[in-house]
Amino acid sequence: MMHEGLKNNIEALRAVGRRFYGRGWSMGTSSNYSVVLRREPLELLITASGKHKGWLSAEDFVRVDAAGQLLTPDQLKASAETLLHTTLARRPGVGAVLHTHSVWGTVLSDRYFKEGGLGLEGFEMLKGLAGVTTHEHAEWVPIFDNTQDIPALAAEVERTLASASVPPHGYLIRQHGLYTWGRDLEEAERHIEIFEFLFECVARRLSLPRAMPVSDR
Amino acid sequence: MMHEGLKNNIEALRAVGRRFYGRGWSMGTSSNYSVVLRREPLELLITASGKHKGWLSAEDFVRVDAAGQLLTPDQLKASAETLLHTTLARRPGVGAVLHTHSVWGTVLSDRYFKEGGLGLEGFEMLKGLAGVTTHEHAEWVPIFDNTQDIPALAAEVERTLASASVPPHGYLIRQHGLYTWGRDLEEAERHIEIFEFLFECVARRLSLPRAMPVSDR
Amino acid sequence: MMHEGLKNNIEALRAVGRRFYGRGWSMGTSSNYSVVLRREPLELLITASGKHKGWLSAEDFVRVDAAGQLLTPDQLKASAETLLHTTLARRPGVGAVLHTHSVWGTVLSDRYFKEGGLGLEGFEMLKGLAGVTTHEHAEWVPIFDNTQDIPALAAEVERTLASASVPPHGYLIRQHGLYTWGRDLEEAERHIEIFEFLFECVARRLSLPRAMPVSDR
Amino acid sequence: MMHEGLKNNIEALRAVGRRFYGRGWSMGTSSNYSVVLRREPLELLITASGKHKGWLSAEDFVRVDAAGQLLTPDQLKASAETLLHTTLARRPGVGAVLHTHSVWGTVLSDRYFKEGGLGLEGFEMLKGLAGVTTHEHAEWVPIFDNTQDIPALAAEVERTLASASVPPHGYLIRQHGLYTWGRDLEEAERHIEIFEFLFECVARRLSLPRAMPVSDR
Repeated sequence: MMHEGLKNNIEALRAVGRRFYGRGWSMGTSSNYSVVLRREPLELLITASGKHKGWLSAEDFVRVDAAGQLLTPDQLKASAETLLHTTLARRPGVGAVLHTHSVWGTVLSDRYFKEGGLGLEGFEMLKGLAGVTTHEHAEWVPIFDNTQDIPALAAEVERTLASASVPPHGYLIRQHGLYTWGRDLEEAERHIEIFEFLFECVARRLSLPRAMPVSDR
Repeated sequence: MMHEGLKNNIEALRAVGRRFYGRGWSMGTSSNYSVVLRREPLELLITASGKHKGWLSAEDFVRVDAAGQLLTPDQLKASAETLLHTTLARRPGVGAVLHTHSVWGTVLSDRYFKEGGLGLEGFEMLKGLAGVTTHEHAEWVPIFDNTQDIPALAAEVERTLASASVPPHGYLIRQHGLYTWGRDLEEAERHIEIFEFLFECVARRLSLPRAMPVSDR
Repeated sequence: MMHEGLKNNIEALRAVGRRFYGRGWSMGTSSNYSVVLRREPLELLITASGKHKGWLSAEDFVRVDAAGQLLTPDQLKASAETLLHTTLARRPGVGAVLHTHSVWGTVLSDRYFKEGGLGLEGFEMLKGLAGVTTHEHAEWVPIFDNTQDIPALAAEVERTLASASVPPHGYLIRQHGLYTWGRDLEEAERHIEIFEFLFECVARRLSLPRAMPVSDR
Repeated sequence: MMHEGLKNNIEALRAVGRRFYGRGWSMGTSSNYSVVLRREPLELLITASGKHKGWLSAEDFVRVDAAGQLLTPDQLKASAETLLHTTLARRPGVGAVLHTHSVWGTVLSDRYFKEGGLGLEGFEMLKGLAGVTTHEHAEWVPIFDNTQDIPALAAEVERTLASASVPPHGYLIRQHGLYTWGRDLEEAERHIEIFEFLFECVARRLSLPRAMPVSDR
């Protein structure tokens, strides 16, 4: 018999998958999602490797420990990026981690910001990020180069987050996608929505001419 | 027992939330919606602060008076922007106020129109605005700078609307979003749809070259 | 008791409305749709004026004759553009007429093609237009200036269609929208989908650079 | 009585049609889909000619042999492009073939890549293609000129695939659409999603300025 809390978490993650697939943020088995089941010792529920997020079944999840190791003998593999989840989940106040692959995140991180991050400033929508109370907030989204060496990337993410004077709410991996998190799944999903909205704003602003032609005024 | 009219209004606002979330106009707890429950004295039903508009429950609303003060002891807070709603609701013939955060509204208000407003002219779609009977109508959409000082903004909005020779059907707050209203919720929703459609038209027109290249003719 | 055929036609038009609203082609009470109920004398079922196409009820329709006059005493008004429907419905082989307001149709007809029409050529998708058997087909979409004088516009449309050496499958009204038709509602809906697809193709092609930058190859 | 496996395949293809129509990849009777029912001799289930993919019924399919000939007397015609399906289905390890018409595929194949193909490189999303294990993979998508001579095109596709040093996972037909395949329908659908995602990435990257304006940094 499945524990009630576990079951609820699975249902909640499946619903997130359907919504993100609907928006085109989790196409073709991309993305992975996790929630913290227990803190001491850390236990994480995470989408198994290679599953399509648009129609996750209750069996498409595994449980892992702080090192990303499977907690139960299983036919399934944990996502290759599990360590990126546990690295974030070990931080205080993180109850869920969501990773998506969107067109705008992919394109923006590819074309610009070779200097290592993207600044978001002046948008009212920033107030939806946990703890942000004014649109004058300046959010810095670190961008890491993509790699298949996940332990190295996890360590680099950890160092960057630890040394940030203002802790970011998410980061991008170049030509790959977004990681964000929250104290619970609801907050993490809200952060995904906000970042994706703002990435689209930044990209569309860039695609418009700097000044309006006189005849369009 | 909940009053039938109140219940219907709540259900109608919840449905609006699902539709606007579906279109990407109310992501990440952004936006707020209200309907006038009573005119003398003014009583407004409005979405509570911090609720996600995609899955509003019947409990995610509060009632406020003309000054934006809660009418019932409540665990919930009224939206920080409640005064912007009551300012509009006090105007004659206003039965509902809707506020959304769209990508196009955000980008257009950010990049252009530093002179204080956006003109919409010549579009057949303008005829969907209450009282407009020809596409030759010129709609002026005032744009206000964003601020966290809502009373000051509400006063500025009130002055602008009062002094307009042709009263506008909505306004934008820079890098923030759209406010519009109607004699009832149906009309206010129609106005949201029309403005969002026209913002997209204006933005896409700007992203196209001024003249068609000869080889594309 | 409502005639079964009438009921089916109403249900079919309601479903079209939900789909076109879903795609953003019929926002804010824009658009109107009709089907031919009888040919001799001509009787047309058409959406009543000012109804939202996303949630048409069975009562949101009227019946009109070849001159666009109401056939039954009714509280409802026929759409202001009824004559544009009857003009088309009088043509041989036309069983349904659909009119939509899309962003791409609005923007393309506004910005370019001052010479009176838009040519579509070389697209496989053209083969979905009735009678077209090769992508080498050249479809000419006439564009008419917008006006509130519907009888004058209807006459102009009629003249243009009558004199075309290759009869077009649809036309645009500038900054307004698309009219297309088919031998039945299914074909007319397919034509809407094809034209909207091709308008988007043409507009997006225009928004891309003429040549690919060397570093993007 | 319909064979259970056949019934399941039909239901699965109908669901694919609803999803692709929902995303705008199969508008207006465009597209065709097939699954291999038997290998020796080859038997293919394929959508019949001229059916709308958004509401395929269980009767909108035919069965064909390796040469694309109907296996049962039928009122329906096989899709004109059936030979493009059987050519692919004859290759080892191909269990399903999907063909879509998207805006981005149409526009990209039309405007650029006159040299015969489109390179996709560096995207994490590439890892969703069967057998690809790193984002450093370089995927070459051949582009063929459109033609109504399907046997000639099928022969050209066969030659190109046979001679490729790294076999591609799909190809484009100019101003027409995408063909991709998989060991089963699930994999083929995943490949459609991935290619469409990447086409959008490439096109949007092209529509952004090469360098970010200083004031947007």
